[in-house]
Amino acid sequence: MEYNFSDRLKNLGGNAIREIFKLLAQPDMISFAGGLPATDLLPCEDVARITDGIMHGANAAKILQYGETEGYRPLREAAPLLLSRVGIQDVTVDKTLIISGGQQGIDLTLKLFTNKGDVMLVESPTYLAALHIAKTYELNVIGVKSDDDGLNVEDLERKIIEYKPKLIYVVPTFSNPTGKTMRVEKRKAIAELTAKYGVIVLEDDPYSELRFEGDVVPAMKSFDVVGNIIYVTSFSKTVSPGLRTGYAFAASEIIKKLTVGKQAVDVHTCALSQAVITEFLTSGLLFKNIEKAKPLYKAKKDAMIDGIDKYMPEAFRHTNPQGGLFIWGEFENLDVADLFPEVCKRKVAYVSGESFFADGAGRNTIRLNYSNATFEQIDRGMKILGDFFKERV
Amino acid sequence: MEYNFSDRLKNLGGNAIREIFKLLAQPDMISFAGGLPATDLLPCEDVARITDGIMHGANAAKILQYGETEGYRPLREAAPLLLSRVGIQDVTVDKTLIISGGQQGIDLTLKLFTNKGDVMLVESPTYLAALHIAKTYELNVIGVKSDDDGLNVEDLERKIIEYKPKLIYVVPTFSNPTGKTMRVEKRKAIAELTAKYGVIVLEDDPYSELRFEGDVVPAMKSFDVVGNIIYVTSFSKTVSPGLRTGYAFAASEIIKKLTVGKQAVDVHTCALSQAVITEFLTSGLLFKNIEKAKPLYKAKKDAMIDGIDKYMPEAFRHTNPQGGLFIWGEFENLDVADLFPEVCKRKVAYVSGESFFADGAGRNTIRLNYSNATFEQIDRGMKILGDFFKERV
Repeated sequence: MEYNFSDRLKNLGGNAIREIFKLLAQPDMISFAGGLPATDLLPCEDVARITDGIMHGANAAKILQYGETEGYRPLREAAPLLLSRVGIQDVTVDKTLIISGGQQGIDLTLKLFTNKGDVMLVESPTYLAALHIAKTYELNVIGVKSDDDGLNVEDLERKIIEYKPKLIYVVPTFSNPTGKTMRVEKRKAIAELTAKYGVIVLEDDPYSELRFEGDVVPAMKSFDVVGNIIYVTSFSKTVSPGLRTGYAFAASEIIKKLTVGKQAVDVHTCALSQAVITEFLTSGLLFKNIEKAKPLYKAKKDAMIDGIDKYMPEAFRHTNPQGGLFIWGEFENLDVADLFPEVCKRKVAYVSGESFFADGAGRNTIRLNYSNATFEQIDRGMKILGDFFKERV
Repeated sequence: MEYNFSDRLKNLGGNAIREIFKLLAQPDMISFAGGLPATDLLPCEDVARITDGIMHGANAAKILQYGETEGYRPLREAAPLLLSRVGIQDVTVDKTLIISGGQQGIDLTLKLFTNKGDVMLVESPTYLAALHIAKTYELNVIGVKSDDDGLNVEDLERKIIEYKPKLIYVVPTFSNPTGKTMRVEKRKAIAELTAKYGVIVLEDDPYSELRFEGDVVPAMKSFDVVGNIIYVTSFSKTVSPGLRTGYAFAASEIIKKLTVGKQAVDVHTCALSQAVITEFLTSGLLFKNIEKAKPLYKAKKDAMIDGIDKYMPEAFRHTNPQGGLFIWGEFENLDVADLFPEVCKRKVAYVSGESFFADGAGRNTIRLNYSNATFEQIDRGMKILGDFFKERV
């Protein structure tokens, strides 16, 4: 039969990364595409031991039973342990919602604050899944210029006045895709500006714990005085993406409404995941594991920068992040958007940069991930890329 | 600050059951409210052992890493083991999507097939979360009359012609809230009728494995010849609600689009849950545990029916289901909708029936759950209810 799909989905394909993900099932593929944590860091042994403890503990049946939509209470109560590390000080249970990964934080926020046709401002480029989710709400997404340290504040104010957006989506620390980080002064300025205009800000912060150089920059949320900023973080990059668990932190009035939205979509986040993550967080194991991850990610980032220097053409400029998972590269005067399938034939993948722009710009850009490949793959893959692009510059 | 919430959520409160759920945190409360499996049946020891095996197995890191949105492949491949039991024979991986519980199956289906203002037909009464989800899509929900064995086919056809619905939502086996089951002839008739009019049917089937009397009735999906029926089931009632895992099964074209929708909301279902459930299903442990559950649920159902006979007023009529979790009761000429807070003060809870009607009808009805209370609580709770209502009839 002919299906009559909804307006929001009828013309929407899979997002670029999730589709590439299927390509990567080929075992000989070198992938700089996803945003996957290093496989060696995934704490299989810890999860086994912790789960065993939980399932033999006094709360075992409670974990396997239906739970509250707001989340497993011990995990909600543990939120200050994490959020205080980015300068967020007023963390209480009523401001905390457990979500099924950062992605759900974006989805629920858009569900709560936007109607069809509303404007959402994003940094240009921005996280492609945020663009994908915005399409499912039929939003009008407008890009804001990006400086070396993220959103350009003048352009942001101009566009707030011009477009009256319902929402601004931003990844201030180790941005996906660029790896850029906003200076603290800029965070304060944006918090003040958006408070003045009464615009909701969604601060997506999955990467800040993965800082291997430089000093911690406080979350934009820590400068929120009117309650217009929703802070979302996730354990996907610090414990395990497979467990699908994160935090949303916002004014209690917002959390109440996000909870009503979450009731409708999945009742609650997997309770076993929540209990496992609680143990990681409260025992301090989370932070021990993060300390192990940092030197590895720094070494991988350095290896990729070395590879770029050695192999890539002169016309390739790139960021050099102090943390997170991504390097962003731009070719001067070279449209590489259509070259991706050819690159893939040489068994290397990245994400084509135009996927991160709301308006199809960035055809000269690529996003490189360094966290999941081995050192050998990073060198070999960058050589393959370098050879490929040098033929075309 | 004043928040400007979306049209879909600004006037929406929490759904009745989830709100009652918080009340039930009181330890001395007897609850006939939720749809919780018996706590004693939750397989804590099995989950510990299975998780240990998975986390020490060859696929451990893969389980903790990002996975495909479509679901963990071994679980998708295992779908025939479950679906063949309700007569669904053409089960292939491309028609199978792993979802984060049955609730997500409803949410994704509405996301895919409905626009604001569209009509959804439901049995009257129907599962209250389906009504809650429909509100988040701003649908116009119309109730269809209910016979002793579910949807009235004549009224259904009349309303298909009158309202041109995008979707019909139905729980044909051990309906929530009524416990009713559709005859096989009616399932065939509805499959044919909806195929003729080209209407999508969402068949929600979380309870059919919990049949403690009578013969299996094939799923409506097994009579689908045009691909208009989406079948959703869940492991919440047979393994654990806390693991938030279920199946959606439909034409591959629909599954592809549901997957695009799922990408946007949670990337994928918790991979540890998926791997644990795979082991339950493929090892046969799932079915062993179900066989253990059946006599217990039958005994609890019988105990509740005994309690009704002993204590409730004559004017209380009720269903007597052959499986599932619920008994549905109606008082002749007695509006009980506003009495619920008073009942709660006597430390017994159920769900007030009007929550299950799209149009606020059913103020003389209540839904009773028998699966989670102890035998002692069932007797004591029914006596309290009986005394309470006898004072008012």
